[in-house]
Formats: sequence, structure tokens, C-alpha cells
Amino acid sequence: MEIGFVGLGNLGTPIAENILEKNQRLFVYNRTASKARPVVEKGAILCSSIKELVQKCDIIFSVVSDDAALNDITKGDNGIAQNLKEGGIHISISTILPVTAKELAQVHKQFNNHYVAAPVMGRPEAARAAKLNFLVSGEHAIIETIKPLLQQAGGVCIWEFGSETSAANVAKLCTNFLIVSAIESMAEGINLAKKSGIDSATWINMITQTMFSAPVYLNYSNILLKEIFQPAGFALKLGLKDVNLVMQQSTEIDAEMPIGRLMQQRLHQCVANGLGDYDWTAMALALK
Amino acid sequence: MEIGFVGLGNLGTPIAENILEKNQRLFVYNRTASKARPVVEKGAILCSSIKELVQKCDIIFSVVSDDAALNDITKGDNGIAQNLKEGGIHISISTILPVTAKELAQVHKQFNNHYVAAPVMGRPEAARAAKLNFLVSGEHAIIETIKPLLQQAGGVCIWEFGSETSAANVAKLCTNFLIVSAIESMAEGINLAKKSGIDSATWINMITQTMFSAPVYLNYSNILLKEIFQPAGFALKLGLKDVNLVMQQSTEIDAEMPIGRLMQQRLHQCVANGLGDYDWTAMALALK
Repeated sequence: MEIGFVGLGNLGTPIAENILEKNQRLFVYNRTASKARPVVEKGAILCSSIKELVQKCDIIFSVVSDDAALNDITKGDNGIAQNLKEGGIHISISTILPVTAKELAQVHKQFNNHYVAAPVMGRPEAARAAKLNFLVSGEHAIIETIKPLLQQAGGVCIWEFGSETSAANVAKLCTNFLIVSAIESMAEGINLAKKSGIDSATWINMITQTMFSAPVYLNYSNILLKEIFQPAGFALKLGLKDVNLVMQQSTEIDAEMPIGRLMQQRLHQCVANGLGDYDWTAMALALK
Repeated sequence: MEIGFVGLGNLGTPIAENILEKNQRLFVYNRTASKARPVVEKGAILCSSIKELVQKCDIIFSVVSDDAALNDITKGDNGIAQNLKEGGIHISISTILPVTAKELAQVHKQFNNHYVAAPVMGRPEAARAAKLNFLVSGEHAIIETIKPLLQQAGGVCIWEFGSETSAANVAKLCTNFLIVSAIESMAEGINLAKKSGIDSATWINMITQTMFSAPVYLNYSNILLKEIFQPAGFALKLGLKDVNLVMQQSTEIDAEMPIGRLMQQRLHQCVANGLGDYDWTAMALALK
């Protein structure tokens, strides 16, 4: 069973490296070929086009930046769907709109191969530590087939959301919304504490040992207190992209999201102010 | 050492009962005397005025609803400060403005007795289970004296914020802001999940076992998913009162709080729509 990997960015690279470690061969493709160098140096085989890669593989992972990029690599004469062999599987890790996942599952079906939604929770360091959480949805039998692969990719846990392909994408958008809201709230709380003259680290220590004793508060409060906004673990402009998807989905299904809308405005403002390539915790700077 | 207790509301009553259990005597006072009945039936001695209560006691706990009520019982000829013996201690549990705590500490100082800020984290069920977290600030020696009493009152942990009396009140406002923001965010996420056609309980199960594995998400998501908004563990109108304090403090010290401002508007709207006596999780109803 040959495996291919498309998209060797910040998160794609450590995931690809995990897969390479556990398998004889890994074929890789990246639009900007230079970004493939680290994983190729570790033994991956570089292909010069999606079509070339897909024709050599049974299973394709993709981790690309947005819906448009995923459509580009999946659809059309040179895309994954048309060139993947019958019964082949496309494991799509990107955070995208649920409707895009539905469409792409249909496209794959036309060519008698499979699309699985497998968006991931975890920053690059979690990928390197093999502590990723994969959210999956799609045909049950296909998901059973790929579970060992997701573990090889660095998955510590695989969360199933059922057979409707888009379900995991919905769950991912809900989760990213909750994270961005928690970051902004922490930032506002830390700012209030500091300006009121108390030691914000003492406050954070209390809440993260009591009501807020969860990784999202422990990890992000650490970044916020130390104000280490570069290099980006997750770039602010990608955070805006995700919140844009959240708001697009909320509009689509007519769900009110007042904090969501506020986060969209604030992240947009941060990008306009040149913070797009900072870590998304840098939204704290907008309070200063 | 005689102990007095003022304010036998939803939270005051179980705290007073905890103290009564561990001590020979407890003197109590409540503006609406009928609310004192449960604790009096368990053996507490009812006083007919603050002055009468205070003159019998060395240490006074107070759990009243807001800054005005606390000023009322503390200041003036019949108040706690003037009638408490020299060296006596007033342990103030209410969530109030930092500036109010500073003022009241000064008033007590004039009469050679002590004011300690000891706002509490925990709903009535946490009080009954003796799992409260007390946030304390004030003179170090006085805090050492009262620590065993706070444990008797149901404190599982006592968090110290230093000698500036208002520090614990700042930390409490920051914490309540973070809670209200987490509740609204969860409500928005659950609503987005549901309306998008996925099982919101499956999503909540995933997040509370991973990035959001903290009591605030576990407890409040349970209420939000089941939509059990009555009886109120913490009334929405009190949530608004606390967020009003947060915003008053943020204005005072010029700290921007966009989510805080939004929460104030939404809670205000909820109270206007008749949800004031519901649990503050009922803010989820405003999304429907």
C-alpha cells in the first residue's frame, strides 16, 4: 500500500515525517517544492505533480491551506479524485467548510474512490510529539481502514463523528471558534488583572489549577503571559481564515454567533495591522 | 472566639451551615429574617440587627449581594466596622469592586479592626460539598488567622493575592469574566453544531476530553446540553451585576474588553427579556 502526502507546511511537515518513520516509502508533493526539502532529506520521494504522486499511491493525505487549494488539488483532469485508483482513499486534514467536504466526497464517489474528512487538533509541536487528535467522518469501513494510518501520522486519539462526510469539519470549526474565544478572553482577563495592579501570573495559576485546568488555558496562557508571539505555532491569518469559515457556516445555517462575529472583526483588524504572520495569540496586542 | 454571619442567600446559607457544623455557636443575621430559618433550625442564633450580631462576635463573615448592600452593613453607627471590637475581623465574601474593598478596609482601620477580602469561587453545590475556592487578600497575619475558618466554611483551597486588600476582588472579577465568556462561547458552539446537523454531545465529549478538559467546560456544557436553566445555581441577574463590575473596573483602569462589553449587552438583554432569575447559562436562549 503506497502512501502519498500533499502539503508540506508548518503542520504538514511533521505529520509527513511521522508517516515516513513508520513506512517504507512516502511520496510527497508541495506546490512550492523547496518546502518539501526537510522531508525529502529524511527519505521521502518528491513528485513533480499531483497527478504523478496520485498515480503511484493508494492513499493520499492532504494538508493544504484552504478550501480553494483543496478544490484545486482534488478536482479536474490533473486532480486527486480523477487520478486515484478505484478504491483509493483521500484523507483530507485541512480545516474547510462542511459544504466543500460534501462536494469533494461526491467528486471522489464519481471515480469510485473515497474521500474522508480528518481535520486535526494540534499545533506542530503536538504533531512532533505524536499527540494529535483527529476528527473523522465518512464511510465507516473506510475509516476503520485508515485508523492505523492516522495513528502513524501522530494521532493519539481518533474521534468519530459519523458517516456524513462533513460532520468532522463542523466539529473542527466549532472547536477552533472555542479556542479563539478562549484566547481572546484570557488576553482580556490578563490585561484587566495587570492594569488593575495584580500579578496576572498568580491569577492564571489559580484558574488553571481550578475551573480552567485544561490544556487550552495552560498552553495559551503561557504564551500570553510571556508574550512570545513569534515564531507562529498557528499564524493569526490562518486563525482569521478559520473564523471566516465559522461565520460563513453560521450564516449558511442561520446560527447567531455574537462572539464569533466579534472575533472575526478583531482578527481582521489584526491582519490589517500587520500581525498576520504572528501567532494567533498576538491578538492580545490589539488590547494595548 | 464567637463567629457571626451576615447574608443567608443561595450561597451564604450552605457556607453558614458549614461553619455551624464545626463550631459550638454561630450568630446569624439576614435582612429578610425568613431566609435565616433553615440555618436557625440547625442551631444558629438569630440576631435582630447587624449591631446586635457584631457586638457578640469576634469574627464576622458577610455574603451580601452587591457593593451597596456591603456598604450598608459595614459603614455607619450601626454597621460592622464601628461596632466590631478592636482586633475583630470582617471576612467579606461578596464579589465587589476593588475600590469598594479598599474603602472598607480603610473604614475598619479607623476602628482598629480588620477587613479581609475573601471572594469565593463555587456554586451552592460546591459549598455543600466543601469544595469552594477562596481568593484572599489583606494583612498577612490576619489571613493566617482566618485560614482555618475558611476551611471550615467549605474551602478546599485558599489562594492568596497579597496584602493589597482589593487584589482578590480583581482576581474574582477576572475569573467571573472568563466564566461568562466560556459559557457564551460554548452556547454558540453547541448551537452551531446542532444547527449544522451534528450531535453536539459528541462534540462536547471530544473537547472536554482533550483541549477543554476543565470543570468549567464539563459542568456548564452539561447544563447547556440538557437546557436545565432552573433552578438557578447562579442567577443571570447576578451574572449581569458581576459583568457590570468587570466593565466598571475596566473603564476605571482603561483596559479594553471587547468580549466583556458584548457580554454586558447580552446579559442586559436577557434580563430585559425576563431571564434574570434563570441560571446564567440561560443566556444560551438568546441565540434561539
